[in-house]
Amino acid sequence: MQSKRSKSGWLEPEVVAGNGLLDRRAFLRGGAAAAGAMMGYTFVGSAAAEPLADDPWSKVPGGISPPYEQRSRYEEKVARTLSNPKGEPRTQHARTPHHLINGTFTPNGLHFTIVHAGTPDIDPDKHRLLIHGLVKRPLVFTLDALHRYPMVSRMSFVECGGNSAPFFSKEPIQASVQALHGLVSCAEWTGVRLSTLLEETGIDPKAKWFIAEGADAPALSRSVPMTKALDDAMVALYQNGERIMPGNGYPMRLLLPGWEGNMNVKFLRRIQLTDAPAMSYYEARTYAPVLPNGKAYQFYFLQEVKSFITHPSPGLTLKGPGFYEISGVAYSGNGRISKVMVSADGGQSWAQTALQEPVPSKAFTRFRTPWRWDNNPAVLQSHAWDEAGNVQPTRAQIVAVRGETTKVPPVTGFPSQHYNGITTWAIERNGEVKHVYA
Amino acid sequence: MQSKRSKSGWLEPEVVAGNGLLDRRAFLRGGAAAAGAMMGYTFVGSAAAEPLADDPWSKVPGGISPPYEQRSRYEEKVARTLSNPKGEPRTQHARTPHHLINGTFTPNGLHFTIVHAGTPDIDPDKHRLLIHGLVKRPLVFTLDALHRYPMVSRMSFVECGGNSAPFFSKEPIQASVQALHGLVSCAEWTGVRLSTLLEETGIDPKAKWFIAEGADAPALSRSVPMTKALDDAMVALYQNGERIMPGNGYPMRLLLPGWEGNMNVKFLRRIQLTDAPAMSYYEARTYAPVLPNGKAYQFYFLQEVKSFITHPSPGLTLKGPGFYEISGVAYSGNGRISKVMVSADGGQSWAQTALQEPVPSKAFTRFRTPWRWDNNPAVLQSHAWDEAGNVQPTRAQIVAVRGETTKVPPVTGFPSQHYNGITTWAIERNGEVKHVYA
Repeated sequence: MQSKRSKSGWLEPEVVAGNGLLDRRAFLRGGAAAAGAMMGYTFVGSAAAEPLADDPWSKVPGGISPPYEQRSRYEEKVARTLSNPKGEPRTQHARTPHHLINGTFTPNGLHFTIVHAGTPDIDPDKHRLLIHGLVKRPLVFTLDALHRYPMVSRMSFVECGGNSAPFFSKEPIQASVQALHGLVSCAEWTGVRLSTLLEETGIDPKAKWFIAEGADAPALSRSVPMTKALDDAMVALYQNGERIMPGNGYPMRLLLPGWEGNMNVKFLRRIQLTDAPAMSYYEARTYAPVLPNGKAYQFYFLQEVKSFITHPSPGLTLKGPGFYEISGVAYSGNGRISKVMVSADGGQSWAQTALQEPVPSKAFTRFRTPWRWDNNPAVLQSHAWDEAGNVQPTRAQIVAVRGETTKVPPVTGFPSQHYNGITTWAIERNGEVKHVYA
Repeated sequence: MQSKRSKSGWLEPEVVAGNGLLDRRAFLRGGAAAAGAMMGYTFVGSAAAEPLADDPWSKVPGGISPPYEQRSRYEEKVARTLSNPKGEPRTQHARTPHHLINGTFTPNGLHFTIVHAGTPDIDPDKHRLLIHGLVKRPLVFTLDALHRYPMVSRMSFVECGGNSAPFFSKEPIQASVQALHGLVSCAEWTGVRLSTLLEETGIDPKAKWFIAEGADAPALSRSVPMTKALDDAMVALYQNGERIMPGNGYPMRLLLPGWEGNMNVKFLRRIQLTDAPAMSYYEARTYAPVLPNGKAYQFYFLQEVKSFITHPSPGLTLKGPGFYEISGVAYSGNGRISKVMVSADGGQSWAQTALQEPVPSKAFTRFRTPWRWDNNPAVLQSHAWDEAGNVQPTRAQIVAVRGETTKVPPVTGFPSQHYNGITTWAIERNGEVKHVYA
């Protein structure tokens, strides 16, 4: 960091892009504190004019530790938003509040979920997984049996193909990052590689696909190429250290790191190896939308490189000028994130962000960069690259190919799928954050 | 992996140590499945003799997605054990069930907690953090103010200095890994580096220590050398992505990665820079036990290199001979784990385990190794090394220096602190797992 001394003698970090974006390495080395110097450019703490008064909770004994710790009652506002809170007979969406959490993955209570006929109440001791079809030896696995196999743990995001559908609207929808991007989350998944189980059943060389089916009422099924089965597909049993949450497929789900959320079949019950795809409901209809040129997507599995800023974002109003951290998440179904750039002037100039290490493959990477806001309008964007060389497109590039809609998304059908373009937040003079296209 | 073909034509993994320990690289490459071969040595799945019957939950619509997802009702047995479930006026311990979870960190509901006068019910909007004493400019921080500073995220274990105290008993206590090692957990913590805040306040060169004090009723305080403040100390605001749990210090705690749990002051309220330690209750008494030679520990901050096997462990009975995965956690306050060896014959021969990547510094590393149990008695141990070259000691080496006790631990005082020796599980012919000394 090329800091310099201000007139007052304090160290000043370098401005590296327009509208006050600072060098990402500011603060990260602790050098000023170690030298006993003050940075002084932040000053969002308040002068300590008088001793702290004792708060009431410091004067009485506190509460009893429970067997399973619950959140503070002051955190109840940190919640998923529900598209169908009464459980009417249609799909239920529960969206992640990205602006109210921080870190590199999503806590289990707040992971997004989509269920098409509610969440089944499965007895894990009675649930079975069958692997059959083009195998040498069909096998049935209990949960106990699966626990005897070698396991692996990995961070992986799961994203609905319809996440970010509102960006196909001709006009920018005024909504929070939760409403716009809340159908993606990230967790550590632990389970047995599907390839390990296929070493048990053997594989008939004619098998080119497998059909995964859930135990929910719609028996949701998707077809997956065998290449993924032999790569990183997992029968996941644990989510962030504990058994998978009900809405995420308890007691087991298919995990296909980096691929369309709907394919990561929950409540996994049957895997059938086949020589052709099943052309099931979700692959033949919802996730095979017709394009403006009359062609259709088919088997568009990959969730491509993407990023969005979570702090600040709509609903998180800036409280006066001065220092703020800009942070957000980036991810790619192709592998690791290699770089995230941030702009505060609508893309005219860019600053490189700090990526929180370790940077995992096919998982959230949190990016952070320091920013000094001067109280003037600013336009924030993030722009991500992955290790395979893919670049997050602009919104204009996406809608040029896929079109726009005047309906209020999310709408089923075209265009609503696989939006991975740049998101833009406009900061107004009063500190409010608006969603704009730029 | 040097596999070979058995008489039946199946591939067999290499046995690398006594009593059936297999090469850690078995299963990790998917090579057999990719080649369409069967490994065949596992066979804990059951032959699929007839079609799966439909379960009742597959025939009816399921439940409603809640704003905050809760665990399945079938998981309620996965819980912390409580030393003081009625909240009597003494310390409350809640221990992590390591044998019932998996992955590389501890879910928030199951992170261990110790509170000395209950958990305070703190209003985050009213809570303040004061940094004062030998600083150039004392400052008070609200939670909102702290959120404007650059943040960092890191995995870190927190371990009570008294974790594993039962190992000082002359006779091995028959108890679960939860009872024996349940006062250590691991989480991703996100917050502001203490050094960043000290860049704001400035540091008087006379400052050699800081005293951290909590807002709980005992106003728990500990003295910490300034070197740690300028290294990796953090004012942590988030635990595994969401705000810190009440029992872990909501709304903020001090995090001192790798140092004695009690020093990671919860409900953090005041940090006073000083030229000498405060000699507070916990540093002058509980964590300064007298040794057999009449000297005492003082300021023994580091939690040293350690490991234990979680699967199998007491309570997890083996169900017949055949393949099992041995797995557990290893960690060191000195940095990364470099190697974990496992023995199945009480230390006569050892096999290297696979370490789940990425291997983080001062955090849990899950180790795994495949094992074929032949139904004969076996004696399981794990043995860890860290990147600084430290080696986990045997129990005999520890008690030779620190002594033993005939009281039933955990007991306050000597010897009960900082046990990091090897743990031994004896597998009996009927598959039961016992705690033994070896």
